[in-house]
Amino acid sequence: MDLINGNDIAAAIIAELKQEVAALPGRKPCIALVRVGEDPASVSYVRKKEKTAAEIGVTSRILLPPISITQDELCQLIDELNADPTVDGILVQSPLPKHIDDLAIFRRVAPEKDVDGFHTLNLGKVAQEDETGFVSCTPAGIMELLARSQVDLKGRHVVVLGRSLIVGKPVALLALQKKAGANGTVTICHSATTNLSAITRLADVLIAAIGRPEFVTADMVKPGAVVIDVGINRVPDATKKTGYRLTGDVAFASVAPLCSLITPVPGGVGPMTVAMLMKNTVKAHRLSRR
Amino acid sequence: MDLINGNDIAAAIIAELKQEVAALPGRKPCIALVRVGEDPASVSYVRKKEKTAAEIGVTSRILLPPISITQDELCQLIDELNADPTVDGILVQSPLPKHIDDLAIFRRVAPEKDVDGFHTLNLGKVAQEDETGFVSCTPAGIMELLARSQVDLKGRHVVVLGRSLIVGKPVALLALQKKAGANGTVTICHSATTNLSAITRLADVLIAAIGRPEFVTADMVKPGAVVIDVGINRVPDATKKTGYRLTGDVAFASVAPLCSLITPVPGGVGPMTVAMLMKNTVKAHRLSRR
Repeated sequence: MDLINGNDIAAAIIAELKQEVAALPGRKPCIALVRVGEDPASVSYVRKKEKTAAEIGVTSRILLPPISITQDELCQLIDELNADPTVDGILVQSPLPKHIDDLAIFRRVAPEKDVDGFHTLNLGKVAQEDETGFVSCTPAGIMELLARSQVDLKGRHVVVLGRSLIVGKPVALLALQKKAGANGTVTICHSATTNLSAITRLADVLIAAIGRPEFVTADMVKPGAVVIDVGINRVPDATKKTGYRLTGDVAFASVAPLCSLITPVPGGVGPMTVAMLMKNTVKAHRLSRR
Repeated sequence: MDLINGNDIAAAIIAELKQEVAALPGRKPCIALVRVGEDPASVSYVRKKEKTAAEIGVTSRILLPPISITQDELCQLIDELNADPTVDGILVQSPLPKHIDDLAIFRRVAPEKDVDGFHTLNLGKVAQEDETGFVSCTPAGIMELLARSQVDLKGRHVVVLGRSLIVGKPVALLALQKKAGANGTVTICHSATTNLSAITRLADVLIAAIGRPEFVTADMVKPGAVVIDVGINRVPDATKKTGYRLTGDVAFASVAPLCSLITPVPGGVGPMTVAMLMKNTVKAHRLSRR
């Protein structure tokens, strides 16, 4: 069994982007990071994005509207960023407060600045295999982890556990594409799937994205499989200072010995999302210059 | 084994639409049918659409630009139809001549008039389970055939053979949706799939959409399965006046006895596409009045 080291792969991508940005003439790529309110997890995520942008040479512009901002005001803020030619990418940090219609906000972002890849048009482009769009960061990160671990999906059975808009569906569409590295046979399972373990045991590559701690157990995995664990779950742990530990959707200790390759949690898919966000931002800048 | 009679189901939908349109006050729904050149199959398809529209009470406006039309001229024609408030739906008949970029033309149609459901935004809405969009007619017709044959996909394994943009991918996304009747576990197979028959034999519902005559044979089908045959292939047949006969992607004679339900070709999925086009046109008219 080998580990897929997401920290190392993300660091390699960040180093490549840094080189690419350094070589760019004129204005550098710029990402607008919009964080509504002071949710502690959001504060930490946005800080991490700002730090990675700085490392690469991407300018970031931080916007911190108060939690009381209205839907209309937030739309207006996004419209201003859409219209600003010095902003290449716009990220609106999730979760948004309950009084905000988040789907409407994600769709308000101009598709050509939607570096989070949440816009309907960008999801449609993933289905159409149109590379002028933006792939959302977690599925893009999963494909990059596989590619850089020399896992070619062609003709292999990829089983995706979870049908979310942010991970399950787009990663299934990516694994299915005709391009090199993809071309997998893809099955998508979810809460209504019956006989789940019989299906997951078919997987040459199993992608777990359901947000249930240690849900995937050894009896659900075919020996030799590649396992990608997208879950980041907090489970209570009295032995930790924080009172919790992080665990994935896979019962790592018992599953890992069966696998040919597996991502750990933390340090697997997690670090890839910020790297892919930056990759999308550099792409948005490149496309806007054409 | 029972046959799913697409002619009967399409006729029922057409009768429902006729009632709905008759009850509409004011201007009736209108579809613009654009046919470039004189391809005989296209002539026949457009005539069929015109005839069905008339039967329902939907106005049709037929536009017949010459085969020499340029990309720019065709775009201009579509822009005019997009801007015309008396046109609810626009259908550009495929195939287009080789000098035309068809994907660009399909994307030129305003999403809210894209009753063919080929626009990137409408495909994205299928993935997002957003019902304000338009589902392309063949996948929508397949779901309607299943629903009206009391086939509930919940927890059942749906295997889709083919990953086309027009059928395979959208029908997979529809079967996967959380709404009533759907909720299937979905596998998508294609030309790069290895061990194909082992996978198709898992199918409770098998949807064949690969365009290869009689490709699905009895050894590929689980006894009791529901089989939906999307293929319409012409194979040479000297005993026919036309010199060919129509056959599906399924070897009907040997597969049918195994099935609980199966669609014939012709008379299965085929008649549904025009019915669903009309359903989309009536929906476009309804949405435009809001």
